[in-house]
Amino acid sequence: MTNRPLLEELMEALRCLPGVGPKSAQRMAFYLLERDREGGRQLSRVLGESMERIGHCSRCRTLSETDICSLCSNPRRDDGQICVVETPSEVVAIEQATDYRGRYFVLGGHLSPLDGIGPREIGLDLFERRLAEGNIQELILATNPTVEGEATAHYIGEMARARGVRVTRIAHGVPLGGDLEYVDGGTLSHAFSGRREF
Amino acid sequence: MTNRPLLEELMEALRCLPGVGPKSAQRMAFYLLERDREGGRQLSRVLGESMERIGHCSRCRTLSETDICSLCSNPRRDDGQICVVETPSEVVAIEQATDYRGRYFVLGGHLSPLDGIGPREIGLDLFERRLAEGNIQELILATNPTVEGEATAHYIGEMARARGVRVTRIAHGVPLGGDLEYVDGGTLSHAFSGRREF
Ligand SMILES: [Zn+2]
Ligand SMILES: [Zn+2]
Repeated sequence: MTNRPLLEELMEALRCLPGVGPKSAQRMAFYLLERDREGGRQLSRVLGESMERIGHCSRCRTLSETDICSLCSNPRRDDGQICVVETPSEVVAIEQATDYRGRYFVLGGHLSPLDGIGPREIGLDLFERRLAEGNIQELILATNPTVEGEATAHYIGEMARARGVRVTRIAHGVPLGGDLEYVDGGTLSHAFSGRREF
Repeated sequence: MTNRPLLEELMEALRCLPGVGPKSAQRMAFYLLERDREGGRQLSRVLGESMERIGHCSRCRTLSETDICSLCSNPRRDDGQICVVETPSEVVAIEQATDYRGRYFVLGGHLSPLDGIGPREIGLDLFERRLAEGNIQELILATNPTVEGEATAHYIGEMARARGVRVTRIAHGVPLGGDLEYVDGGTLSHAFSGRREF
């Protein structure tokens, strides 16, 4: 228990949201309390439930409330293609912007040996098992166009080539150093269809 | 129960926050799930508790988790002055920007007969009892400089004058039609100290 006023605690707690500083946190707290308590209660419930129940798909590692996500369990998606991205939000961005119908694999980051992030930390043991299943014809590398993203793409590309899988990389319509999830849909769609041998 | 994915529910629930559209809601949801689950859990707890436990002070009507708020119960504040504002966030703004040490009264809006908002709906029965206590020497009107805020100020000013109370209005350094809580501290402080007879 604390002696701090609950209103202060609320304003501080709201600042865990990205892009929310002290001024917006105050505005949000007063808005909910004065004008939308039902919305605030609903957000509290859904947020708490989400933090407990949303985990990661045991097959592709994207965010999912079921052991296998809906993209992995959908029988109409193409097992012959797998697209590797760094984060779950990039899966959503690609789904929204392109007509890609294959599978995904989410690294949850990129290789960063100095930070102790090796192949295991980005799930490449699991990815190796996906390759071993033998269905994959094409690996589409959609890691970010940063130095680390490129290095990670090269590493994963070698794993796939060793299995005789065709390896492509999405075209760089994305500005170098940019973050995939903030690119507009048109650019992302163009980059996706313009992918090349890697 | 619903069949919608919890992640979609979370993104929709986040949109109850002012200034949060679909794109920021998505960014917030992924950020909390991928990088700050503890922050998300804490926000869920504090938000739920706030929606239940924060009510209104039975004396000044500002937001408070106790029956009488800390501003009303503080024995070092001056009972001779009372400042009337439209919303609780304006109390915070005045506290932060000025050295005012009197009491407050929060209307929770302004008179708006066409919307069925009369004197009772903005707590003027309670305010009348404050006047009847006989301690108030000066009423400071800090309603917004809008048509409705001015009309409300006039109405309350008459109530106080009928009791022989001095009535002042904060100076309009605030742009006409502007919203008090978004004014910078310096302007608000200047407007406060430059209040005039009303
Ligand atoms: Zn999956
Ligand atoms: Zn009070």
